[in-house]
Amino acid sequence: MENGPATTLSGKILEDPLAYLPCSAIHEYGRGQTIYGQSQPSTSVYLVIAGKIKVFRLADNGSQVVIDIYPCDEFFGESAFLELSDRGTETAVALENTKVMAWTTGQIEDIAARRPQLAIGLLQLFVQRSVYLEQRIESLSVDPIGRRLAQALLRFSERMGRQTEDGWVEITAFTHELLGQYVGTSREIVTHSMNQFRRQGYLRYSRKSILLRPEMVRDRLRAEPQVA
Amino acid sequence: MENGPATTLSGKILEDPLAYLPCSAIHEYGRGQTIYGQSQPSTSVYLVIAGKIKVFRLADNGSQVVIDIYPCDEFFGESAFLELSDRGTETAVALENTKVMAWTTGQIEDIAARRPQLAIGLLQLFVQRSVYLEQRIESLSVDPIGRRLAQALLRFSERMGRQTEDGWVEITAFTHELLGQYVGTSREIVTHSMNQFRRQGYLRYSRKSILLRPEMVRDRLRAEPQVA
Repeated sequence: MENGPATTLSGKILEDPLAYLPCSAIHEYGRGQTIYGQSQPSTSVYLVIAGKIKVFRLADNGSQVVIDIYPCDEFFGESAFLELSDRGTETAVALENTKVMAWTTGQIEDIAARRPQLAIGLLQLFVQRSVYLEQRIESLSVDPIGRRLAQALLRFSERMGRQTEDGWVEITAFTHELLGQYVGTSREIVTHSMNQFRRQGYLRYSRKSILLRPEMVRDRLRAEPQVA
Repeated sequence: MENGPATTLSGKILEDPLAYLPCSAIHEYGRGQTIYGQSQPSTSVYLVIAGKIKVFRLADNGSQVVIDIYPCDEFFGESAFLELSDRGTETAVALENTKVMAWTTGQIEDIAARRPQLAIGLLQLFVQRSVYLEQRIESLSVDPIGRRLAQALLRFSERMGRQTEDGWVEITAFTHELLGQYVGTSREIVTHSMNQFRRQGYLRYSRKSILLRPEMVRDRLRAEPQVA
């Protein structure tokens, strides 16, 4: 996997961890299969090669809180870098048939000892994730559900959307239950908000996919900071 | 700063970044002074030497969302590792008279090129923070306010509490407004919950400090997963 470091607009050089990792064996998981969880702790960091992974935490009241959904080319499982007792109760399952590569944290530390840019690249990646988690905390603290849902759909459209004609972006038809687990509400309330978005003209959905007009959603969020 | 790597109970070796960083000049900030923010972006990672730092995000509706409070011996400012546009709108202010050391991300990357364990240590630290932010997301998604507040007080007592007689732990008297900005609610609702905790016998507070009985709070959270 050969990529040079990416220079950003601000001139800061962000390291790409993939430039320093050798290809690993590919593991396949069927839809709904668990990659790691409380009863199957992991010692590896993974890269999605095909498909999608859902990472969630199981709350004391039994409900799933979805931390994120990882599409192709994204890393997950970084909590393997911590000792078991610090990891929390995270579970990763395949949302569809999925292929991943895996490297143990020991392998990564060995490579980083020779190529420190790997560790810097991973460090930048995990700090980026922290900033995103902080945005979620902000949103959960102050935003009404509709606004949280709009932000979630925007984020999915940026990371896993396919541009179609006339400014629509197509994303996988995540269930309303899954969207609720992501924004911290019930399936019913997600359905209510999705119907509102549809009537307002910036969302269409079928069993197969969700179609979004990201620019309209962004304009709406900017125009009305208090509501969705 | 000489520390060896710490071996945890599980046998995993966590690297201590301080073992690899040279002492830097010490900077002092008065209570309320800004260390970095939107109009003063930072290129450094900081270590608190004395005092306390509050890191918050300013939401679109103007309210502060407190990401965390960093006491002595903790690092903050890791978003300096990202390009400016990815950092969000984080601000760090001194909660009291505070001393910090600072290293630019360039200095850290230079040292890490020779001593990759520094990058691994920081990487482990930032993954640990992500796991904690995920716990906050879980709590904001499913827990009522009283429970979130109890968890916040427990966390502060673990990181910055002083053991006193009879199983009480003393922490700084954070204002109810600050606690509200941390758990995502108003000052009034925090005051209501704090009074409840006091009547239930596991909290005492004065203008000077908050006294908590962590074991009683933990037992209570375990016994009643749905309420505080």
